[in-house]
Amino acid sequence: MANITKKVSWSSRADESAAAGESTPLLNGSEQPQHSRQLSGGGSLFQIGRLSTVDLEEEITSDEDSLRGRPKEIPHNEKLLSLKYESLDYDNIENQLFLEEERRMSYMGFRCLEISRWVVCGLIGILTGLIACFIDIVVEQLAGIKYQLIKENIEKFTETGGLSISLILWAVLNFTFVMVGAIIVAFFEPIAAGSGIPQIKCYLNGVKIPRVVRLKTLVIKVCGVICSVVGGLAVGKEGPMIHSGAVVAAGVSQGRSTSLKRDFKIFEYFRRDTEKRDFVSAGAAAGVSAAFGAPVGGVLFSLEEGASFWNQMLTWRIFFASMISTFTLNFVLSIYHSHAGDLSNPGLINFGRFEGDSVTYNLYEIPLFIAMGAIGGFLGALFNVLNYWLTIFRIRYVHRPCLQVMEAMLVAAVTATVSFTMIYFSNDCQPLGPESTEEYPLQLFCADGEYNSMATAFFNTPERSVRSLFHNQPGTYNPLTLGLFTLTYFFLACWTYGLAVSAGVFIPSLLIGAAWGRLFGILLASTSSGGAQHSNAIWADPGKYALIGAAAQLGGIVRMTLSLTVIMVEATGNVTYGLPIMLVLMTAKIVGDYFEEGLYDIHIKLQSVPFLHWEAPATSHWLTAREVMSSPVTCLNRIEKVGTIVDILSNTSTNHNGFPVVVQVLESDEPAKLCGLILRSQLIVLLKHKVFVELARSRLTRRKLQLKDFRDAYPRFPPIQSIHVSQDERECMMDLTEFMNPTPYTVPQETSLPRVFKLFRALGLRHLVVADDENRVVGLVTRKDLARYHLGKHGLEELQLAQT
Amino acid sequence: MANITKKVSWSSRADESAAAGESTPLLNGSEQPQHSRQLSGGGSLFQIGRLSTVDLEEEITSDEDSLRGRPKEIPHNEKLLSLKYESLDYDNIENQLFLEEERRMSYMGFRCLEISRWVVCGLIGILTGLIACFIDIVVEQLAGIKYQLIKENIEKFTETGGLSISLILWAVLNFTFVMVGAIIVAFFEPIAAGSGIPQIKCYLNGVKIPRVVRLKTLVIKVCGVICSVVGGLAVGKEGPMIHSGAVVAAGVSQGRSTSLKRDFKIFEYFRRDTEKRDFVSAGAAAGVSAAFGAPVGGVLFSLEEGASFWNQMLTWRIFFASMISTFTLNFVLSIYHSHAGDLSNPGLINFGRFEGDSVTYNLYEIPLFIAMGAIGGFLGALFNVLNYWLTIFRIRYVHRPCLQVMEAMLVAAVTATVSFTMIYFSNDCQPLGPESTEEYPLQLFCADGEYNSMATAFFNTPERSVRSLFHNQPGTYNPLTLGLFTLTYFFLACWTYGLAVSAGVFIPSLLIGAAWGRLFGILLASTSSGGAQHSNAIWADPGKYALIGAAAQLGGIVRMTLSLTVIMVEATGNVTYGLPIMLVLMTAKIVGDYFEEGLYDIHIKLQSVPFLHWEAPATSHWLTAREVMSSPVTCLNRIEKVGTIVDILSNTSTNHNGFPVVVQVLESDEPAKLCGLILRSQLIVLLKHKVFVELARSRLTRRKLQLKDFRDAYPRFPPIQSIHVSQDERECMMDLTEFMNPTPYTVPQETSLPRVFKLFRALGLRHLVVADDENRVVGLVTRKDLARYHLGKHGLEELQLAQT
Repeated sequence: MANITKKVSWSSRADESAAAGESTPLLNGSEQPQHSRQLSGGGSLFQIGRLSTVDLEEEITSDEDSLRGRPKEIPHNEKLLSLKYESLDYDNIENQLFLEEERRMSYMGFRCLEISRWVVCGLIGILTGLIACFIDIVVEQLAGIKYQLIKENIEKFTETGGLSISLILWAVLNFTFVMVGAIIVAFFEPIAAGSGIPQIKCYLNGVKIPRVVRLKTLVIKVCGVICSVVGGLAVGKEGPMIHSGAVVAAGVSQGRSTSLKRDFKIFEYFRRDTEKRDFVSAGAAAGVSAAFGAPVGGVLFSLEEGASFWNQMLTWRIFFASMISTFTLNFVLSIYHSHAGDLSNPGLINFGRFEGDSVTYNLYEIPLFIAMGAIGGFLGALFNVLNYWLTIFRIRYVHRPCLQVMEAMLVAAVTATVSFTMIYFSNDCQPLGPESTEEYPLQLFCADGEYNSMATAFFNTPERSVRSLFHNQPGTYNPLTLGLFTLTYFFLACWTYGLAVSAGVFIPSLLIGAAWGRLFGILLASTSSGGAQHSNAIWADPGKYALIGAAAQLGGIVRMTLSLTVIMVEATGNVTYGLPIMLVLMTAKIVGDYFEEGLYDIHIKLQSVPFLHWEAPATSHWLTAREVMSSPVTCLNRIEKVGTIVDILSNTSTNHNGFPVVVQVLESDEPAKLCGLILRSQLIVLLKHKVFVELARSRLTRRKLQLKDFRDAYPRFPPIQSIHVSQDERECMMDLTEFMNPTPYTVPQETSLPRVFKLFRALGLRHLVVADDENRVVGLVTRKDLARYHLGKHGLEELQLAQT
Repeated sequence: MANITKKVSWSSRADESAAAGESTPLLNGSEQPQHSRQLSGGGSLFQIGRLSTVDLEEEITSDEDSLRGRPKEIPHNEKLLSLKYESLDYDNIENQLFLEEERRMSYMGFRCLEISRWVVCGLIGILTGLIACFIDIVVEQLAGIKYQLIKENIEKFTETGGLSISLILWAVLNFTFVMVGAIIVAFFEPIAAGSGIPQIKCYLNGVKIPRVVRLKTLVIKVCGVICSVVGGLAVGKEGPMIHSGAVVAAGVSQGRSTSLKRDFKIFEYFRRDTEKRDFVSAGAAAGVSAAFGAPVGGVLFSLEEGASFWNQMLTWRIFFASMISTFTLNFVLSIYHSHAGDLSNPGLINFGRFEGDSVTYNLYEIPLFIAMGAIGGFLGALFNVLNYWLTIFRIRYVHRPCLQVMEAMLVAAVTATVSFTMIYFSNDCQPLGPESTEEYPLQLFCADGEYNSMATAFFNTPERSVRSLFHNQPGTYNPLTLGLFTLTYFFLACWTYGLAVSAGVFIPSLLIGAAWGRLFGILLASTSSGGAQHSNAIWADPGKYALIGAAAQLGGIVRMTLSLTVIMVEATGNVTYGLPIMLVLMTAKIVGDYFEEGLYDIHIKLQSVPFLHWEAPATSHWLTAREVMSSPVTCLNRIEKVGTIVDILSNTSTNHNGFPVVVQVLESDEPAKLCGLILRSQLIVLLKHKVFVELARSRLTRRKLQLKDFRDAYPRFPPIQSIHVSQDERECMMDLTEFMNPTPYTVPQETSLPRVFKLFRALGLRHLVVADDENRVVGLVTRKDLARYHLGKHGLEELQLAQT
């Protein structure tokens, strides 16, 4: 995953170039309080000051201030929390406009909406399946041509002895493909790098990663993944499918493409974060389903990564999208392979059928499986640690696009060279039987009728290699071949993950694991062959151990739990392995977590994303909302001067996104009470349409602002700078009553952090108002306030907030 | 399911007898307001009156009052909502004691807790698996003896012509078993009747069904299910496993048995609703897993029925329990069948392996499958409608235990007679091949070397019948046999469900569906045999159609979605059928829902349980918290007189369970402000331990009340009547500060119903305080306030509350 190879981030280069039109950063509350105080001194803001009881926080904040004063070139660091990520708003903004619309809608209206949700899910499934087909077919064709060329070349030069020319041919071919793939990613859409799974995880968690669900990203991703797989890198095309599915979902569900400037005027109801997220979940599930032929696994993946609230109908719809996706893939590929109607290709990666005797296992094998799980966990942690250092190095030194392209090309050349060398020096010749399934058997220095077994592993697309490790007859590989292959492929895959190319880590992990798993099985069979009391066919079937090894290695790297178990079970097409795979994944996770986090979590942390986990850290009960919240809060009056609003929105140093709306009892000195919450995006739309009290009075025929106006602007609201407000208009007043959310969730100051966290996470909130017992606003809790506490080695730690 | 055959309910007979010691009914807020007003007139209560703004509700309430004035003998009716069900409290009561404990706990402490959670889940899995084994083995043994006896008898009398004696023998045997099963259920534990799935659904939804997770219930359930299956009723032993698993979980996780008066002093931390519910979810999943060999299906079942908030670690633990359960069952049964180590019995019902050619399907078969789904949906709805009428009849006329036992015995006798008659008049003789898998082939009037095919369907445990319908060679059954079998079994099963015996509806549904599905397949094959262009082995394999038919029928009856798909897929051991099964279940659900609800939902509604669905009714946006809430609310002062508290708790006419705690600024006329929430159960413990301010002063050495005291009393808190408070003590004061939840969730009065609903459901609340903008209590929303709105045929309907 090359998506963090730049100092800035997954996406910030484009932010710099397009800062005006894009993603106003979230920066709420207590950071840089000097500024907000100056502003409040200016008198144009209504601000509720700190209470005397928050002295503790005052101290903490001033400590933080000094840290925040550090120069801007702080590198990405997992001890920081970036302030540039906005949150998504999964809480419906139930303002008057919304409620009126909902009340107008009849029961039939809701039924129609429900039906269109199903239609959208069906479309998502079909399109995701088609994209998977497209990738698969193009990769097969291009890789076929490439391997055929090289094979002929090698065969020509094996006799005459000019094999270095073959090597050069191979390297140049790989080189070219990878260069194209890296250039489009690094120069046109850096967010398309890597597998996209961390980004989708963040999106489903509620963090807005800019441009992650754009059409352009999808196009670059699809082309990029084709280039990198054909380019012979140690990558898979499965991870990117999940991202692709998510993009498809986000596009289809909105009924328009902002990139193509086409609006089909359908599905307008779905133009808000809540609905869009549900569809993106379905898209991610459809992607998993297409990648692995695992519809249930896809649903569980979406839930494991995204769901904060389980809803039966939603899950059922997600499952529908998954099923349709795998079915479409299956159907189209069956036509492509000229067996129309034979639905035997459920996913991009096909583990092949595990049937007959090889599927059974015995009770005494379970400890062996658990041991393999531990090995997988350890190797996975090693992989992650190495990749972590590599990523840090990349963040520091390889952050310019041209450097990234050069690194990718270097990796491509090295991969080709290493592969060639390994094949060249390998002596593992195997007879080429009539039932052999090799696509490109390389004879090389083997006798006639034999082929080089190392070449099966290297001179092949990774999917085919995995399948041959699972299913080839015992004896097809000798242990030395497997050992060398594991070693080289481990380092190649580790180096590759994080390059500026679109590619996934699932298949390389499976391949590494399958290789050492098969090795494990062979060694086991050889140690016990003396006794020979076991039926060898069952107990030391190397294919079975290859499968367990693959599960262990993948689990050790990505640390997924239930969903990965189900994906593996579905990909093998057999539920018998359920228990061993679960035990192996569990062991791998426990062992791996002891050393290092999962690969995706590492990359999320290195991006300083304010990611909310399932629960508040265990030992955080001593913290309350008072310590956690940001204060003072910039509040707006229910009827507020336009000038004030423009000033607040233009204040780049604070850049708040949500504003509690308060109401002051006229001619009394009582403190103002909370009466609602309004978002920056809503204010922007109001300013753009000049919804001012004075104008409404003068022009009675003026069209009333509707929900449609907000939906049309979603999700790319214009920045405040693009809105022109004249000096006269600045003196007008705006009435926010109709547009604010009149019932924001609130908590008292004494609420403990776990309680705040639970409310925030379960409801997918973006802003949570902290109120005192007079219903006055005393603070605001946002995502970063909660995400910054985490359990480190020395108890509860607080991450620093940084404007990276 | 006989659990509603009494006028009162699933459980109320025992409530009447043990009213003092058990389940003080929930009766909160607005019902019978005259009483509470009289009380408040008496001056002993602090009550916040209605605000002038709630006139609308005043009107509604007075309408309701007249309805509530109806005589008490209103029968159970799906238009009523019973007030006798308490809610469970899934929101942690974060009072000072709890926070102190959490803050004292180190990180290691939390780790240990986490480990013990895993241990508990492992134990739940093992015990559930063992119970499943026990049921399976006992049923096999007893059924084996029974069928052997009858077979010998029939064979003896076939020649001599006294078959009526065989019939009598059969009927008497069935009769006896069913009588025993019905007596223990009807007289000792009525809640053990039926499959228990509706009860577990309610429990996981948050409704406290008395005695549903007691040890006694488990014992009766296990014995009952053995009796009813051996008694030859049209029932399965799978549904009850889910209930059994839940009971095991509730027992193990508490580390004690109140019934056995044993406290192991372990797992004390888990003695609260939140933790217990999580374990019960795991237990239900383990039950599904043991029943069907479907660990993933089990997890999904738990989530579909119970989860309000998905948590990765929790789900992973539930999956662990599921896996262990199916593994234990598998392992023990492998020993029992003398193939130790061969793990091929994953569940109680084994669909057998679908392998080889029979598993594939062609694209053009999909419309056929969908048509079968529609048939299944229609037949399922018919089943449900018939059962609904039958249940209404039972509620009205068959509510005394002895009548229930007699009905069960009648059904047993009729079942035996009908089966016998069908076999007797059947002419369907099939050759008894060497590979035949019949356990008890009945020759009857067939030629030597042949057996009666109708007997395979009837003269067998239902599980075996299902398997033979799935896997017997094409031609084993003739269409007439299948048609007659479907018809009779449909009505028998429909009559049986709802009897006072422990039994499930899964297997009968599968059996009916498999029979007509196979019939469908045979007819299909015969219509197309003219053309013969298809390879018949694949396309009209009757076993495949039997499977699809079984899925359609089961889906049409129970209307489960994702979980049922996965259960079916796992039970067949083959993922190939995923798509057709999903399409079939989807069609069955859509068609079935058009006519009637699912069977479990019907029974839940007939019990008037305040069941919360996933979302508020679609057209409920015009309702706000103001209309929904109960008011006036009985509030307590933070420092309250003991006498007042005792009086409030003793008031049987209101019987509130949660009390907002308010604080009045001394010597001011400002209204009292909300400062916490305290539960009846907590007050009871406080009164029992005489935690009075005066006593604390006089006896300084007095032990401080700890969380442990509350946990020891959980979940069977004594009734207020059992607590003696002297006249002197009545004058003492109680300080609630330490014990109340100081940060209850609140909503403003303007909050829309869907918003209130979402908060309530997502966080699993029991009481939600409605506060005005001065933070004064104006109302309280409880489960029944939300559950009473539902979408009927004429838009939004409101259920009547009734003290049934």
